[in-house]
Amino acid sequence: MKKLVHGGDIYSYNKKVIDFSANVNPLGLPQSVKDAIVDHIDLYENYPDPLCRELKDAFFRYKNIAAEHIVFGNGAADVIFRIVFALKPEKALLLAPTFSEYETALKTCGCEVLHYFLSEKNRFALDGGIFEKITTDLDMMFICNPENPTGVATKKELILEIARKCSENNVILVVDECFNDFLEDETQYSVVSDRHQYKNLIILKAFTKIYAMAGIRLGYAICSDEILIDKISNTLQPWSVSTVASKCGVAALGEKEYVLETKKLICQNREYFINELEKLRFLVYHSKANYIFFKSNDLELAEKLEAYGVLIRSCSNYTGLGKGYYRIAVKNYDNNKFLIECLRKIANRQF
Amino acid sequence: MKKLVHGGDIYSYNKKVIDFSANVNPLGLPQSVKDAIVDHIDLYENYPDPLCRELKDAFFRYKNIAAEHIVFGNGAADVIFRIVFALKPEKALLLAPTFSEYETALKTCGCEVLHYFLSEKNRFALDGGIFEKITTDLDMMFICNPENPTGVATKKELILEIARKCSENNVILVVDECFNDFLEDETQYSVVSDRHQYKNLIILKAFTKIYAMAGIRLGYAICSDEILIDKISNTLQPWSVSTVASKCGVAALGEKEYVLETKKLICQNREYFINELEKLRFLVYHSKANYIFFKSNDLELAEKLEAYGVLIRSCSNYTGLGKGYYRIAVKNYDNNKFLIECLRKIANRQF
Repeated sequence: MKKLVHGGDIYSYNKKVIDFSANVNPLGLPQSVKDAIVDHIDLYENYPDPLCRELKDAFFRYKNIAAEHIVFGNGAADVIFRIVFALKPEKALLLAPTFSEYETALKTCGCEVLHYFLSEKNRFALDGGIFEKITTDLDMMFICNPENPTGVATKKELILEIARKCSENNVILVVDECFNDFLEDETQYSVVSDRHQYKNLIILKAFTKIYAMAGIRLGYAICSDEILIDKISNTLQPWSVSTVASKCGVAALGEKEYVLETKKLICQNREYFINELEKLRFLVYHSKANYIFFKSNDLELAEKLEAYGVLIRSCSNYTGLGKGYYRIAVKNYDNNKFLIECLRKIANRQF
Repeated sequence: MKKLVHGGDIYSYNKKVIDFSANVNPLGLPQSVKDAIVDHIDLYENYPDPLCRELKDAFFRYKNIAAEHIVFGNGAADVIFRIVFALKPEKALLLAPTFSEYETALKTCGCEVLHYFLSEKNRFALDGGIFEKITTDLDMMFICNPENPTGVATKKELILEIARKCSENNVILVVDECFNDFLEDETQYSVVSDRHQYKNLIILKAFTKIYAMAGIRLGYAICSDEILIDKISNTLQPWSVSTVASKCGVAALGEKEYVLETKKLICQNREYFINELEKLRFLVYHSKANYIFFKSNDLELAEKLEAYGVLIRSCSNYTGLGKGYYRIAVKNYDNNKFLIECLRKIANRQF
């Protein structure tokens, strides 16, 4: 069978599995989103609106983001490819480890990719060493904040300094904030409200994770440069966003309680998870996101957990990581407890 | 407002419009597809299967197409971009007039595009003159069959001769059969059953039109070269096909009666339409598809029909066509009759 690069592969098993390998909201689809899917079923025979006008209206209403400053795609991954193909960078800088689709998109476009390796000693935090890498021969840079897979969140002050340095050097900075909505104090990290300061700043976001819409596909990018947004929006196919996704997106934007409840659930359960993992002597990196990154001496932990019907994300295929690194999503208490029990059994068998 | 390139823009109007500008099955979504959307609603929180295994299984069961010979995308338009970015042609040949997304995709990739202009005198039929254009310096060629916007269908014998010439010259031939399912005698035109003969032959198809799934987005390509299929499938994002689209596709494949009923409806109504249009002295090109292409001296017919709440496709932005060419979808009898009545009123006002 073909090897899959990412987590979330629940389809390779003949039994029901508990999936900790994809970082989706454990609350599942909000009821209003489910209702929206059903209520608009008679509209799906028509082509979707290539201009996503209803979604743009909703964003303006709920988030005060102007229609000219937003572009949508078939999930954030689609938006990454759109950005890269629209702007055709020749040299790009990535952090390592980070989400692999940036590099895949850049390479499909023939772009040279440089890496700035985050130091394990520094617990994979982004540091000032990055500044000397931002030079005029660079065209684009990606930062995932909070980082994937580590869960490390970088304060917005540092991101904005990087945006400034990028601006001075004519570099487009893409900040992927797909997991920002899960942070307890997300405004300390998000640069969405600072978008007007930097025309070279593109913020990538998704409905996928926070609204558990992974199977529906809806992502977007925000940028205060209208020409840039226009370019991205005119790249690749016109009907990227399905009518289903559009209707779900509009409904999801109205969900305020659901987001608050999510933050609370994630925060409580992440603490539980970190405590229990540390008791089991894993080296746990203190993530602020809805997933936890840890290191184990057991290089076959993912395979062993499969026997219990549990999927976790082995991070060995991330540039800058080796074997023994794992990422697990924070799910609801019962699921998390089950995973801890499985890990305990595996640990006990070992000694 | 931004000008849209394609038909189907029902979203620019504050009133309900009858849309003849997009060529979607007038029967609407099959009930089994609607049921599938609702029945699987609890699965949409998970990431879709990047390998589309359930869809592939269904294709093998219903259509006897091997999993290794098929690749899916977010509508046929997405598949066009995937093919082009996977194979990166440097020089490509298109017919004119034809569907514009081939050229858009090729140009995004920096490909040089040549046109073979179909002759109006020959009623836009594909002719033997095409053979001398197929040379070794060509990398890719697109044929839409039946052609869009003309509705002219090319017999499979000619398509296969072209495939042979392409094969001899190392040219990838993409045959877009998205509207083939609407033909009365589709096996005379489709080369799907001949795919094993030519590894350079890619057949493009969609659920969009025949199953009225335009707002859901599901397209695919068939090719007997597994390496080629693998390349296309690994280009652009991994989760291109939503779980919604996948579930709808599986349900749609079981719809045999619906397809037969569609053919009958289209055939009857197309005849009615052609007769009435000819009575109104339009120059009607005898389409075999679910849409009709005609010429009028009235260069503002589309704008005039808008006043009646009717959208038709002005074809003036197709390469190889000028003003006065129009395309209309065949819809149900009442809608078609209404369009004819509007056209009659417009004609009467004119004289």
